[in-house]
Amino acid sequence: MKRKYLVPGAALAVALATGPASATELADATGAYLLNTLFLLICGALVMFMAAGFAMLEAGSVRNRSVTAVCAKNVALYAVAGVVFYLFGYQAMYGESLSGLIGIPGIWHADDAAALSGADLSGHASGADWFFQMVFVATAASVVSGALAERVRFWAFVASTVVLAAVIYPAVGHWTWGGGWLASLGFADFAGSTIVHSVGGWVALTGIVILGPRLGRFGPTGQPLALAPSSLPYVTLGTFILWLGWFGFNGGSQLSFSTVEDAVAVSNIFVNTNAAAAAGVLAMAIVSFARSGKMDLPLMLNGALAGLVSITAEPAAPGMASSMAIGAVGALAMLGATRLLEGLGLDDAVGAIPVHLAAGAWGTIAVAFSNPDASLAVQALGVVAVGGFAATVSWVVWTVIDGLMGAGLPREQQKDGCDLTEFGMPAYKFD
Amino acid sequence: MKRKYLVPGAALAVALATGPASATELADATGAYLLNTLFLLICGALVMFMAAGFAMLEAGSVRNRSVTAVCAKNVALYAVAGVVFYLFGYQAMYGESLSGLIGIPGIWHADDAAALSGADLSGHASGADWFFQMVFVATAASVVSGALAERVRFWAFVASTVVLAAVIYPAVGHWTWGGGWLASLGFADFAGSTIVHSVGGWVALTGIVILGPRLGRFGPTGQPLALAPSSLPYVTLGTFILWLGWFGFNGGSQLSFSTVEDAVAVSNIFVNTNAAAAAGVLAMAIVSFARSGKMDLPLMLNGALAGLVSITAEPAAPGMASSMAIGAVGALAMLGATRLLEGLGLDDAVGAIPVHLAAGAWGTIAVAFSNPDASLAVQALGVVAVGGFAATVSWVVWTVIDGLMGAGLPREQQKDGCDLTEFGMPAYKFD
Amino acid sequence: MKRKYLVPGAALAVALATGPASATELADATGAYLLNTLFLLICGALVMFMAAGFAMLEAGSVRNRSVTAVCAKNVALYAVAGVVFYLFGYQAMYGESLSGLIGIPGIWHADDAAALSGADLSGHASGADWFFQMVFVATAASVVSGALAERVRFWAFVASTVVLAAVIYPAVGHWTWGGGWLASLGFADFAGSTIVHSVGGWVALTGIVILGPRLGRFGPTGQPLALAPSSLPYVTLGTFILWLGWFGFNGGSQLSFSTVEDAVAVSNIFVNTNAAAAAGVLAMAIVSFARSGKMDLPLMLNGALAGLVSITAEPAAPGMASSMAIGAVGALAMLGATRLLEGLGLDDAVGAIPVHLAAGAWGTIAVAFSNPDASLAVQALGVVAVGGFAATVSWVVWTVIDGLMGAGLPREQQKDGCDLTEFGMPAYKFD
Repeated sequence: MKRKYLVPGAALAVALATGPASATELADATGAYLLNTLFLLICGALVMFMAAGFAMLEAGSVRNRSVTAVCAKNVALYAVAGVVFYLFGYQAMYGESLSGLIGIPGIWHADDAAALSGADLSGHASGADWFFQMVFVATAASVVSGALAERVRFWAFVASTVVLAAVIYPAVGHWTWGGGWLASLGFADFAGSTIVHSVGGWVALTGIVILGPRLGRFGPTGQPLALAPSSLPYVTLGTFILWLGWFGFNGGSQLSFSTVEDAVAVSNIFVNTNAAAAAGVLAMAIVSFARSGKMDLPLMLNGALAGLVSITAEPAAPGMASSMAIGAVGALAMLGATRLLEGLGLDDAVGAIPVHLAAGAWGTIAVAFSNPDASLAVQALGVVAVGGFAATVSWVVWTVIDGLMGAGLPREQQKDGCDLTEFGMPAYKFD
Repeated sequence: MKRKYLVPGAALAVALATGPASATELADATGAYLLNTLFLLICGALVMFMAAGFAMLEAGSVRNRSVTAVCAKNVALYAVAGVVFYLFGYQAMYGESLSGLIGIPGIWHADDAAALSGADLSGHASGADWFFQMVFVATAASVVSGALAERVRFWAFVASTVVLAAVIYPAVGHWTWGGGWLASLGFADFAGSTIVHSVGGWVALTGIVILGPRLGRFGPTGQPLALAPSSLPYVTLGTFILWLGWFGFNGGSQLSFSTVEDAVAVSNIFVNTNAAAAAGVLAMAIVSFARSGKMDLPLMLNGALAGLVSITAEPAAPGMASSMAIGAVGALAMLGATRLLEGLGLDDAVGAIPVHLAAGAWGTIAVAFSNPDASLAVQALGVVAVGGFAATVSWVVWTVIDGLMGAGLPREQQKDGCDLTEFGMPAYKFD
Repeated sequence: MKRKYLVPGAALAVALATGPASATELADATGAYLLNTLFLLICGALVMFMAAGFAMLEAGSVRNRSVTAVCAKNVALYAVAGVVFYLFGYQAMYGESLSGLIGIPGIWHADDAAALSGADLSGHASGADWFFQMVFVATAASVVSGALAERVRFWAFVASTVVLAAVIYPAVGHWTWGGGWLASLGFADFAGSTIVHSVGGWVALTGIVILGPRLGRFGPTGQPLALAPSSLPYVTLGTFILWLGWFGFNGGSQLSFSTVEDAVAVSNIFVNTNAAAAAGVLAMAIVSFARSGKMDLPLMLNGALAGLVSITAEPAAPGMASSMAIGAVGALAMLGATRLLEGLGLDDAVGAIPVHLAAGAWGTIAVAFSNPDASLAVQALGVVAVGGFAATVSWVVWTVIDGLMGAGLPREQQKDGCDLTEFGMPAYKFD
C-alpha cells in the first residue's frame, strides 16, 4: 500500500488511457484481496530467493580463501535483515512520521482485523506486506556484502547490516515509499533503483574507502591487478537467480493484481525488466569483444545486473526499445564506474558499486525521460539527497565500527584468508 | 482436503476472531476452486524444488568421493517417491481406513467428476492434491539419503525409500492427516514436523545404527574426527533452496486460498517460517563464536533448517517473537542432538537426524505452547507413537535389506568411495 | 491464445465429459483475465529459470576448459532470443499469415487496449503472452548450445541463435501454434516436443555434422572415448531446475486458468509431467545397472529430461501409467540415439540431440496413442516436415556461418580450450 506513493507515474498513464476503471476491476472485494495477497507472496518468495543469487554470485567472484566467509555473510545478512526489520525497520519506514524524515520505530505487528471482519478488503494481508518489504532490505545489504568481501570482519559486517536495516534504509524508504518529503516532491522510484540499490551501494562505497583494498589488488605503482574469481559457473547461476528474482522485485512492486490495469502493468514490467537485462548482456559482450577480441563473462553478467538495476526505477512506463536502451546505458555506466573505482584505487570485490550505485543512479535519472510525470530536477535531487544521507551516515557507522572492533581483517589474516582465520573451514576440499 | 484434520488449531483461532465467515469468502465457487488449485500447484512446485536443495546440501556436505552417489540417490528417491506414492502410498494414507491404522492401499486415480460437473467445487483438483502430497514423501526420503551418505548402497537405499513411501510415511500420515486415531485425539502437526521430518529422521537413525559409521569418522579411542565437506557453497545454496521451498511446504499446508482467513494465515505462515529460520542462523552464529571464537558455517546453515523444521508443526498460530524463540530452541536442540550422536558413536553424514528428528520433535511439542487447542500430553504421545512405529518398522526393514543384499558398502569400497565403486564416475575432474 | 490451436485434443476430451461449461467458468470476466495473466506470468518465470538449468547442465557436462564459454553462451542466447523474438520472431510466428507458411515479420508491440477498455477480457495481457512465448525460443536455442559445446565459436553460435529465433522456430511455430498448415491438418503438439525441442535438436544436429567432433572424442579406430564431465553436481542441479521449469513449460501451455477444466487439466499436466520424468530416471538406472553393474548418473539425468521431452507433446490427456510408459520409452529412445550418434562418429557434448530430438519425435508420435483426436499419419508428417525444414535451413545457415567466420574453433585453440582462447579466463581457480 504505502509504496503506491511511487506508482502514480505508470499507473496514471494507464488509467488515463482507459477511462473509468470500474469495468476492469474485480467486482468481488474478497477476490481482489486474495489475488493481491497471493501475488505479493509469490513475488516476495522470488525476491527472497535473490539471497541465494547474491550468495552464489559473490562466492564465485571471490578467491577460494574467502568463499566460506562470503556464504556465511549472505545467510547472516538475510537473517539479520529479517530480525531488525521486525524490531525497528518496518515501523521506522512506514510508522507515524516524524516530520516526514523517519517513522517512529517500534516492533511490527500483524494487523488484519479490518480485513478479517470484512470491513476493509482493499490491499492485502499485513504479513504479506511485511514479508515483501523485508526482502528488499536484504537485497540492499547483499550489495554491501559483495563489495567488501575478502577483508571485512564478520561481526563488523553484521553490525553494518543492523544499522542499514534499522536506520539507513528505513529513513530513505520513509522519505519516498513511506510518503515523506521526497514523495511529496514527486520523486519516482518504482521498485528502488535508488531506494534499495543505490543505498546499498553507498554503504558499500564508504565501507571500501575505510577498509582499503585487498592485499594484492593494486600493484606497486597503483595499477589494478586481477584477482581470479574462484568459480564462474557460480557467478552465472547467481546472475540467473537474480534475473528470475527481479521479476518478483519489479513486478511485485505494483503491489496489487486486482484490476486489468494491474495485470497489464505487471506484464509490461516482466517484458521490460527482461529487455533491459538482455541489452546489458549484449552491450558488454560487444564492448569487451571490441576492446580486446575476447568476451568478458563477468562483465556480461554484471551487464545483465546493471540493466536490471537501471530499469528498476520505472519498469512499467517505457516501451521495450526504450527499456533496452536504458539497460544498455546502465551497463555502460557500470563499466565506467568500474574503471573509475580502479583509477581511484578503490577495491570492490564483485563490482557491486558499479552495478547497484552507478546503474541505480542512471536508472533513477532515466525516469525523467520515460515517465511524463517525473521531473529531472526532482529525480536528480533524490539521487543526491539519498546519496548524501546514506554516505554520511554509513561513513560515521563504519568509522565507529572500525574504532570499536576493527572493521577489516589484519594483513596477516588476509593472507591466510578469512575462511581459515574467522571460520576455521575452507570452502572446498580438492581431493 | 484431508490435511484439514490438522488445521483446526490455527484456523479456529482465526475464525473465532472474525465472526461469520460469509463476508470474507469468495462468492464465486468456481473462483474459490481455481484459487485453491493454483495455490496448491505453486506451493507443490516449491516443495518439489526442495529435492534440488537436498541434493546440493548433501553433495556439498560429503567428501568428494561420494558426491556422484549422493546426487544419484537424490534424483532416484524423488523418482521412486513419485512412482510408489502413486501405486500404493496415497491410498494407504487417504484411502478407506482399516480401523484408523492405515488406508487400504491401491493405485491412485485422478477423480474430478464432481468438480467438472459443477456439483462440488469445494477443495481443489485431485491432481494438484496428489502432487502436493507426493512431494512431502520425497522430503521425508531426502532426510534418509543425507544421514546415510557415503556408505549406504544405492539399491539398499532405493529399497528403503520404497518402504518409506509405501508404508511408513502413509501409515503415520493416515493416523494424522488421514483422520486416523492420532487425529481423533487432537494431535496437531500442521505441515509435518513429526509426520514428515521426524519420520524421515527415524528411518535414518535406524539406518546409521545398522550401517555403522564411515571409515575414519571416529578415532581409535572413539573421538569424533571431522570429515571435511567437499563444497560449502553447495551447502549454502541447498539451504537457501530449502528455505525457499519451505514457504510452499508450510504455506501450502493451509490447503486453500479462498477466504480472507486463508490469505491472512498463509501470510503469517510466511512471516513465521522465515523468522524461525533466521533465529536458527543467528543462534548458531552466536553459539559457535562464543565457544571457539569462530563462526561455524555448516552449523549456521543447519540452524536455519532446524528453525524451519521446528516451526513446521504450527507456523500460523504463534506471533513472530514466539516463532523466533521456537526456531532458536530448535537450533539448540539440533546442536545437542549432534553432540549426543557423536557421543554415541553414531555417524550422520550431514546432520540430518539432529535437524529433522530432534528439531521436529521439539517443534511438535512446542505446539502445545503456541496453539491453545493442542494438548501437551497428546503432542508428546504423537511424538512417541510415531517414533516407536517408524523406528520399529524401519529397524526391521534395514535388517531385512542388510540380510538380503547388504545395506552398506564393504570396507574396501568405502576407501575408494562409492562414486567409483558403484557409479564408475568421479563427480569432479580437476584439470 | 494462438497456441490454443493445439489444445483441442485434451481440452475437448474434458469438455465432452462435463457438458455445458457455463457452471464451471468464472462469472467475472475480469477475474478470468487476471487469473489467466497471473498464471502465464508465473509459468513464464519458471520457464525463464530453465535458462539457468541448461547453463548448469552444460557447465557440468563439459570439460573444465570450456566452462566459461558454455556459461557465456547460455546467458548470451537468452539475451539474443529476447531481442530477436521482439524484433522479428513473434510476428513471424503469430503475425498475418503468408499462405500459412510464415507470418509477416516485424516488431512486436504490447496491445492491451481492448482489455483496458473492458471490451475484450478473454485471454490475457499481451506482455504476458509475449514473455511466455519468448522463453520457449530460448529453450530451443539452449539445446543447440549444449550439443555444440567446447568447439563452436561464440559469435558463430550467436549468429545461429539469431536465425533460430528469427526464422526457423517462428516458421515452425506458425505452421502449428500460429494456425498454419500443420494446425489445419490437426497436428497436435501441446507444449512443443517437436516445435521446440526437436527444432533445437535439428539445428544442433546439422551443427555437429559441420563442426565435427571435439579433439579426442573418438580414438584412432573411431571408437568413442569418454571426455570426463567437469562437475556432476552441476548436471544434477541443472536437471532439477529443468524439471521444475517444465511444470511451467507444460502447465503454462494450457494458456488459461479460468475454468474448472483448466484447473483440472493443469493439475493433470503436473502429475503426468512428473511421472514421465520419474520413469525416465528409473528406466536408465535399471538399464545402466543391468548392462554394467553400475548406475550411470548422467544417463539417469538425461533419462529424466528425455521423459520430460516425451510427455511435452501431450501432457494432459494420458493417465499416469501411460505417462510413465511414454517417459520410459522416451528414455530408451534417448539411449538408442546416443549409441547411434556415437556409431556415426558424431559428437554431441551433452547428449542434447538424443534428449530433445529423439525423445521429442517419440513424444510427438505417442500423441496418436494417448489423444483420440490425433492421427498417427499427421503426427508423423509433422515430425518429418518440421525435421526436413529445420535441418535444411540450419544446414544452409551453418554452412554460411562457417564460410563467413569459421564456425568451429581451430585445432590448436581447442587444445587450450575456448575459455582461454575466446574468453581469456578459466572458469575455476583451484588454489
